[in-house]
Amino acid sequence: MAVEISEHAQRLLSLPLYGALGTVRPDNTPQVNPMWFDYDGEYIKFTHITSRAKYRNLQKNPAMSFMVLDPDTPFRYVEVRGRLVGEEADPTGAFYVHLQNKYGNDSDVPPPDAAQRVILLMSVEHVSGQ
Amino acid sequence: MAVEISEHAQRLLSLPLYGALGTVRPDNTPQVNPMWFDYDGEYIKFTHITSRAKYRNLQKNPAMSFMVLDPDTPFRYVEVRGRLVGEEADPTGAFYVHLQNKYGNDSDVPPPDAAQRVILLMSVEHVSGQ
Repeated sequence: MAVEISEHAQRLLSLPLYGALGTVRPDNTPQVNPMWFDYDGEYIKFTHITSRAKYRNLQKNPAMSFMVLDPDTPFRYVEVRGRLVGEEADPTGAFYVHLQNKYGNDSDVPPPDAAQRVILLMSVEHVSGQ
Repeated sequence: MAVEISEHAQRLLSLPLYGALGTVRPDNTPQVNPMWFDYDGEYIKFTHITSRAKYRNLQKNPAMSFMVLDPDTPFRYVEVRGRLVGEEADPTGAFYVHLQNKYGNDSDVPPPDAAQRVILLMSVEHVSGQ
């Protein structure tokens, strides 16, 4: 799905920032967690392990909201709404290492939980912010 | 309700940081927005206007999740879960001005939408993070 994304939003989605991922828990209350991410022009990609609460949340309700604050301009931000549309195994932790390098850690050592690692693919269906 | 809050969480909740407020939209998808806030030891308090989507979300589903990232230590954060338990009119914008001062703007001029301003009181029912 092609969604119009402003230059400002494109920029925020290209930087190594910590975003806030919102999911909905099985009891219909929200959950918000900090996440590393990558945006490839189509999907927002997260590294994750399958034993975490937000992974279970997404199995029941795939809706996601992802917010990134502009570090230079307080109160400017982008909020992307979409869904979990795919999941890829990352058993060697290669995508995790890619993100850890992007976020300033040069190590190529995969995380100890690599065997459980997956890449979550979030669709970009609606973009808002200011 | 008395909830144990770590010193780290107390500290994050005392600083003028931008937090990420998660609410649930009427279609059961999450919404995440940046918010100024104040924590008085009992409630997390937000300034808000009644015409915004997240205000409408909260009328239907009062559940809230509020996440604050540690600016000094990447990936340390606090997530507070609670509910909208009260609302106070702020027709002069006094609480807004209090927050604008806390966040570094010394002006005592209230916002143009002061007549619509309310203070949202969020309960602190569960605190997590790392």
